Amino acid sequence: MSNHSNDHHEPSGIAKTPEPPYYAVVFTSLRTPGDNGYGDMAEQMSKLASVQPGFLGVESARDSDGIGITVSYWESLDAIKNWKANPLHLTAQDKGRTDWYASYSVRISRVERQYFF
Amino acid sequence: MSNHSNDHHEPSGIAKTPEPPYYAVVFTSLRTPGDNGYGDMAEQMSKLASVQPGFLGVESARDSDGIGITVSYWESLDAIKNWKANPLHLTAQDKGRTDWYASYSVRISRVERQYFF
Repeated sequence: MSNHSNDHHEPSGIAKTPEPPYYAVVFTSLRTPGDNGYGDMAEQMSKLASVQPGFLGVESARDSDGIGITVSYWESLDAIKNWKANPLHLTAQDKGRTDWYASYSVRISRVERQYFF
Repeated sequence: MSNHSNDHHEPSGIAKTPEPPYYAVVFTSLRTPGDNGYGDMAEQMSKLASVQPGFLGVESARDSDGIGITVSYWESLDAIKNWKANPLHLTAQDKGRTDWYASYSVRISRVERQYFF
């Protein structure tokens, strides 16, 4: 169980998701300058997300110009709702709006098809 | 009309999508080392995608470790199918598998909800 959070983090960074349907949260953000505690909290949230019920995997990339995209995959809309309402995650969301992000978008979608190369 | 391809590229890199429902293609990839003509083709494909019928916007980030995520947004599954079958895009897809990508995933999903900050 102690390695649970690693089950979904492939070396390549591409999540090994099950057969659709399942759900994806696409979080696209523009960071403010400086770290301001962001790095530590991001790592903490990544670990915490990966042990939530219904978590299927996550993929993340941040460009040198500050734009980042994180896509997390979930079994159900309820799993997404529960993660959004997690108290530690709510604190991080507040800090996100006040300190870390100049702007962001969140899109919740139902994955219908996937293929891998 | 000559600026059409810029309509969907916001300065922040966050796409201005319409009210859901619409569709998202999440393309997550791991690059091979070296450019090998990738940069030019990526720019060409980005321009070509943005003038396809049903194109709504695109967001893209690539990490320094080689993982990249590009999310393109579309009005319909048919618009996605047409773009996938575009002859120039098919050529790029072939080169992607032979030259540019060590691995990738493609996920087609229906966006149900979105919010912006």
